[in-house]
Amino acid sequence: MADEAAVRAQADTVRRLKQEKAEPDEIAKEVAKLLEMKAQLGDEGKSKFVLKTPKGTRDYSPKQMAIRERVFNAIITCFKRHGAEVIDTPVFELKETLTGKYGEDSKLIYDLKDQGGELLSLRYDLTVPFARYLAMNKITNIKRYHIAKVYRRDNPAMTRGRYREFYQCDFDIAGQFDPMIPDAECLKIVHEILSELQLGDFLIKVNDRRILDGMFAVCGVPDSKFRTICSSVDKLDKMPWDDVRSEMVEEKGLSPEAADRIGEYVQLHGGLDLIEQLLQDPKLSQNKLAKEGLGDMKLLFEYLTLFGITGKISFDLSLARGLDYYTGVIFEAVLLQQENDHVEESVSVGSVAGGGRYDGLVGMFDPKGRKVPCVGVSIGIERIFSIMEQKVEASAEKIRTTETQVLVASAQKKLLEERLKLISELWDAGIKAEMLYKKNPKLLNQLQYCEDTGIPLVAIVGEQELKDGVVKLRVVATREEVDVRRESLVEEIKTRTSQS
Amino acid sequence: MADEAAVRAQADTVRRLKQEKAEPDEIAKEVAKLLEMKAQLGDEGKSKFVLKTPKGTRDYSPKQMAIRERVFNAIITCFKRHGAEVIDTPVFELKETLTGKYGEDSKLIYDLKDQGGELLSLRYDLTVPFARYLAMNKITNIKRYHIAKVYRRDNPAMTRGRYREFYQCDFDIAGQFDPMIPDAECLKIVHEILSELQLGDFLIKVNDRRILDGMFAVCGVPDSKFRTICSSVDKLDKMPWDDVRSEMVEEKGLSPEAADRIGEYVQLHGGLDLIEQLLQDPKLSQNKLAKEGLGDMKLLFEYLTLFGITGKISFDLSLARGLDYYTGVIFEAVLLQQENDHVEESVSVGSVAGGGRYDGLVGMFDPKGRKVPCVGVSIGIERIFSIMEQKVEASAEKIRTTETQVLVASAQKKLLEERLKLISELWDAGIKAEMLYKKNPKLLNQLQYCEDTGIPLVAIVGEQELKDGVVKLRVVATREEVDVRRESLVEEIKTRTSQS
Repeated sequence: MADEAAVRAQADTVRRLKQEKAEPDEIAKEVAKLLEMKAQLGDEGKSKFVLKTPKGTRDYSPKQMAIRERVFNAIITCFKRHGAEVIDTPVFELKETLTGKYGEDSKLIYDLKDQGGELLSLRYDLTVPFARYLAMNKITNIKRYHIAKVYRRDNPAMTRGRYREFYQCDFDIAGQFDPMIPDAECLKIVHEILSELQLGDFLIKVNDRRILDGMFAVCGVPDSKFRTICSSVDKLDKMPWDDVRSEMVEEKGLSPEAADRIGEYVQLHGGLDLIEQLLQDPKLSQNKLAKEGLGDMKLLFEYLTLFGITGKISFDLSLARGLDYYTGVIFEAVLLQQENDHVEESVSVGSVAGGGRYDGLVGMFDPKGRKVPCVGVSIGIERIFSIMEQKVEASAEKIRTTETQVLVASAQKKLLEERLKLISELWDAGIKAEMLYKKNPKLLNQLQYCEDTGIPLVAIVGEQELKDGVVKLRVVATREEVDVRRESLVEEIKTRTSQS
Repeated sequence: MADEAAVRAQADTVRRLKQEKAEPDEIAKEVAKLLEMKAQLGDEGKSKFVLKTPKGTRDYSPKQMAIRERVFNAIITCFKRHGAEVIDTPVFELKETLTGKYGEDSKLIYDLKDQGGELLSLRYDLTVPFARYLAMNKITNIKRYHIAKVYRRDNPAMTRGRYREFYQCDFDIAGQFDPMIPDAECLKIVHEILSELQLGDFLIKVNDRRILDGMFAVCGVPDSKFRTICSSVDKLDKMPWDDVRSEMVEEKGLSPEAADRIGEYVQLHGGLDLIEQLLQDPKLSQNKLAKEGLGDMKLLFEYLTLFGITGKISFDLSLARGLDYYTGVIFEAVLLQQENDHVEESVSVGSVAGGGRYDGLVGMFDPKGRKVPCVGVSIGIERIFSIMEQKVEASAEKIRTTETQVLVASAQKKLLEERLKLISELWDAGIKAEMLYKKNPKLLNQLQYCEDTGIPLVAIVGEQELKDGVVKLRVVATREEVDVRRESLVEEIKTRTSQS
C-alpha cells in the first residue's frame, strides 16, 4: 500500500525527471505510478488531513495555562483592588456595531459567513462592545473590567507574541467626572501591573488627541486629513521619521512644509517641563484644542506626582494610537530592553498596554447621541505570556499543573474496590485525590506518578491496613510513612498539605 | 428636523391612506413628505442603528457575572479535586477539523466568511478540539478540563437557558485504562457538581452505544440506518414515542415491525436488575456488541455502588445522545421538577450535563489512525445559570459585585490631593480601595456610595486628622468611628475586613 511519504517521494521523482528533461515514455511511466499511488491513498481516506490550529492561533498546554493563570491573577487582583466590577459580552457583534470605529484597521475584522440571518463579525477589541453595552443598557456610570479574546486578521508574528486570536484585559471608567482623576488612575493601574509582573524596566508614553489635533492645525494640516495623518504618526514606533514623512507627503498628499513642521514637534518628549514649554509655544498656545489638552496634561502630571509614578511616565508628542475613537488622553506602555542585553541605548521591545479617553464612542450607539465620557486601559498579555514563559523555561522552577494532594494507592492486588471506596470518601470530604485507573497497578508506578506530577502524599491501602482500620500515609519527598486511623485521615491530609 | 418617530408616524399615515384607498393625489403628497423626512434622517446619519446583541447571545452584567463566578468556582473546584489539568484551544478551528464529527447537527455550525486564507468554523463543542489537540501533540494520556464558549446556530430559547453562544465545562480522561474506572469517575463528578450546586433533585441516565447498536441489530434495523435511527431515539426526551416512531417509519424508511420492537426496548429503565434481565434476554444476549455493553454496564454499576451514588443513576434504554462520535457508555443528567411545583409526577425540566465514551475520535485526526480511548463529561451551565439567577432573585440575598474594602473620603473641600495620596498608599499596600472621582464630593454622597455598593469601611481625611497624623475610620454598618494612626491604617483595615 502507498503511504503519504511514498507518494511525496514519487512526486519528487516525477519532478526531477521533468527537470532533467528525461524520455517522455519514462516520465509517463512514473506519472502513471504516481497517479495509482494517489488513488490508493484516496482509498485510505482521511489521512490527508491537515492537523493544525488556524493561522495566528495556538492551543494552551497545561503548563502554559498555569503561567497564564498567574498573569491573569495579578491583573485581576489589581483591577479588583481598584474597585472594578466585571462584565462579559458575546464573541461576535452585529457587523454594523463595529463599522466606522477602527479607521484604517477595519480591514482586519473577521466576518462570519452569511448563513441566513444577521451579519456578524468577531469582536476586534473590548472597547466597542463595552460602549455598545453601555448605550444598550443606558448605563452612565460604571467601573468595570473585561478579560476576553479578540480577533484581528493581522500578520501574525507568534514568536514575538503577536496572534490573530489574543487576550485583552480591559479596565474602563465611564461617567461624567472631574477632569483627569480617572485618567490618572488608569495610568496607576498600568504602573501597578507592570511592576507586579516584574517584566523588567518599562515606560508609559502619554499624549492627548487634542494636543495632536492642535499640532496638526498649527502645522497647516487640513482638517480633513487629521485622522489619516494621525495614522501616519502612529507608525513612528515601527518606522523611521523619513519613511513616515514620505507616506504623509507622497501617499497622503500633505505639503512638505507641514510635514517638516510636524517632524519638529514629534521629536519632543519629557515631563512637566515640556508641558510648561509648550504652553508657552507661540503657535500651540494660540490653538484652543492644544491649550485644553496641555492644561489637562499638566493636571494629569500633578496627580501622577501624588501617586509617585512620574519616573516611568513620558509625555511624548510622537504617540498617536491607531484607533479612531480616542478624544483626549492616550497612552501606551512599552517594555525597555534590559541593560544586560548589551544594547547601547535602551530600546523599546514592544507595547504591552495601551488606552486612552474616548468621550464620543457611547454616543455613536445611543439613539439620541447622549454621550458617556470614558477612559480605559487595555493590557495586551500575549507578549507578557511570551516573556513569562521564557523566564520560567530559563529558571529551574518546576511548575505543577494539578493541585492533587494525595494519590490513593495499593501495595497488593485485588484492592481496586477498596481504593474506589477510599478515594470516594476523600472526594466527599473535599480532598483533592487521584488514583491510577488500573485494577492492579504496581506500587512503584504509583509512586513514580507522584514524582512526575508533584503529588505530595500517598494514601496506601493494604490487607493489613484494612484489618487494622488504618491507612498508610507516605510523604513522597521524605519517604516517611505513618499509619493513620481511617477516621483521622482527612484531617491529617489537610494538616499536612496546608503546611506545604 | 425629522426624527425616527416622526418618520414612522408619517409611514403609518401613508399606509393608512393606501388601505383606505384615498385620493391618489393625497397619497402622493404624503409619500413625498415621507421621502423628504427620510432623506433628512439620512443626513443625521447613524441614528438608524439597531442596538442589540446578536440573536441567541447575551451580555453578562456584573450581577450575573457574580453568579457565573460562583457556578464556575464550584465546577472548577470539583475538576481540580479529581486531579485535572486545564487546557485552552482557539475559538475557531479549520472547517475540515469539524467536518464529519457531528452527524445531523453539522448544519448548526457557524462558518467564518472566506476572506482569503483558511476556511474556518467556530467550535461546536470542546470535545472535537480536544481530540484534535491530542492527535496534534501525540498525547496518549491526560486528564484535563476546559471551560469555554461554544457556538451553535440552533433555535434559541433564552428563557429556558438555550443560547447560540454558551459555555461548556468539560472534563475528559484520555488513555488506555482498565474498563469503566474513568467512566465511573465522570459520573461521580456529575453527581458531585449537581449536589454541590443545590439545584434540586436530579437523575443521571446512562446507556451504552453498543447496547443501542445491538438492540437495533436484533430489532432488524439495517446497519446503514443505525446512526439515523439513533438520532430519532435521541428525540424521545422532547417528543412522544408515536412521533418518533413515525419519523423512523415515514421519514427514515424503517419497517413498522422493527420500529415497534425498538419501541418495546426504549421503555425500559432501571438499575442492576434490568442489566441482569437484559443479559438473559434471548435476543440481546446473542448479540456480541450488546453483550459487551451490558457486561461493562454491570461493572459500571458496581463501581457506582462503591461511590454510593446509584440512587440517582438510571440505566435507560431510551437515552441515545445525538452526536456521532460516541462509542461506549453515554449519559445525561436531568433536573427533576420540584414536588412543590404541583405536578403529578416528577418530570424532567432539561438536561444539564452529558457525555460518554468516544474511543475513535482521536484516531480520526491521527495520520496513522492511532486510537486514544476517551471518556468525558460536559456540564451545560447556561440552564444552571438561569436557575441560580432565579434563586438569587427570589431570595433576599444582596450580591456584591465588587470587593472594595474601603472608600477614601473627605469631609471638607480642597482635599483631593490628600485623598489621592492616601488611596495610593492603600493600593500599594494591597488594600482594595475606591474614591469618588470628584474634586469636592459631599460626605453624604460618599457614605451613600458605600451603602449602595456594600463597601464596609470609610477612611476619612480632614484638616484636623491631617494635623494629628490620623485617619478617621468609619464602619458603615454600625456608624462607629475611630481615629487610627496613619501608619497603622493598613493593618487596621486588614484586620477589620478579614473578620467580616
